[in-house]
Amino acid sequence: MKIIDATDFEKMERRFRATFFNSLNGFKSVNLIGTINPFGQTNLAIFNSLFHLGANPPLIGLVVRPHTVERHTLENIIAVKEFTINQISEDFYRNAHQTAANYPKDVSEFDECGLTAEYHESCQAPFVGESRVKFALDFIEQKPIELNNTSIIIGQIKAVLIADNLISEDGFVNLEKAGTITCSGLDAYYAVKKIARLSYAKPETLPQFIR
Amino acid sequence: MKIIDATDFEKMERRFRATFFNSLNGFKSVNLIGTINPFGQTNLAIFNSLFHLGANPPLIGLVVRPHTVERHTLENIIAVKEFTINQISEDFYRNAHQTAANYPKDVSEFDECGLTAEYHESCQAPFVGESRVKFALDFIEQKPIELNNTSIIIGQIKAVLIADNLISEDGFVNLEKAGTITCSGLDAYYAVKKIARLSYAKPETLPQFIR
Repeated sequence: MKIIDATDFEKMERRFRATFFNSLNGFKSVNLIGTINPFGQTNLAIFNSLFHLGANPPLIGLVVRPHTVERHTLENIIAVKEFTINQISEDFYRNAHQTAANYPKDVSEFDECGLTAEYHESCQAPFVGESRVKFALDFIEQKPIELNNTSIIIGQIKAVLIADNLISEDGFVNLEKAGTITCSGLDAYYAVKKIARLSYAKPETLPQFIR
Repeated sequence: MKIIDATDFEKMERRFRATFFNSLNGFKSVNLIGTINPFGQTNLAIFNSLFHLGANPPLIGLVVRPHTVERHTLENIIAVKEFTINQISEDFYRNAHQTAANYPKDVSEFDECGLTAEYHESCQAPFVGESRVKFALDFIEQKPIELNNTSIIIGQIKAVLIADNLISEDGFVNLEKAGTITCSGLDAYYAVKKIARLSYAKPETLPQFIR
């Protein structure tokens, strides 16, 4: 085992440090966020900082950094108060990654990166046509994190668009079947292979496999 | 495509709803959090609600719910102001899942679930001996989320214990090589297989594969 402490952290070059700490908490969800500005200009951006915040009401949190290419997404969410989250599968992950490039504000990443803007009555913001699991959200709140000048955007899910036959009887969504990928660090993409689902944990009994 | 809207959400049975919305934002990190109370009683609990909050300083966020089995972890973090985060690999994921059982406060999940408490001078809280990537944190702040009565615990990483040969020259930690798993929903565990790392995205050029 190698031990790396705060003295070592200080010596790390800026990008090394960002890559290192972005890997440490494990694999992450990676999604495309679709937005539109008040003049109808669409935007699409890849995010690996989404997290589940609650099921009732259904809430998603999203860490955003100021002064980065993510600013168009943030500006649009605050102006229009709606956005979409779209899962990424292996057949278009390179297009998805390309949305991180610093395109001018008057250009849509849908066009530049070869992805299809798709609309549904639930939301003004565009969905990604290629995505097999996607949902529309209302912007609820922006929570500042003063510690490092980031903030957390909280959205409430209002409609889910999902390919057929992905939802099990108990509500479980089969993301492996949907082809959804996961990521690590800032730029590494992975496919998944199921190990097992385990039964609800109780003292005195070991967890059993469930289908 | 199936459309599921807020009217449908209302009709969902409580556990169906939790399972459904916990799957929607994609694959998640899954880790064991090690804590100790002021009297030396250790606690270990599985969490899938961790997220990267920043690299400088290195910050991790963690969504916690009141009135659940997670309360021992939360109480210990606040009392002792230290905790550890330990990645899970396939060889001990069933033991890790079992830590979610509702054990009494005076019992340690390390003993009940067959995992090894390991100590390092950087932190009072125990690490998981079986884990190949783990780190110690100082508790920094608890941010209430009034919307749904959850809160976000923010911790700052102060020491990383990592198996040899996992860190690339650019700072990337090879979690696939570490055997780290990912999860979906509340109880589904997955191994990963690398698709690719992609180069930094720039307009006018397509992302290239990097080793």
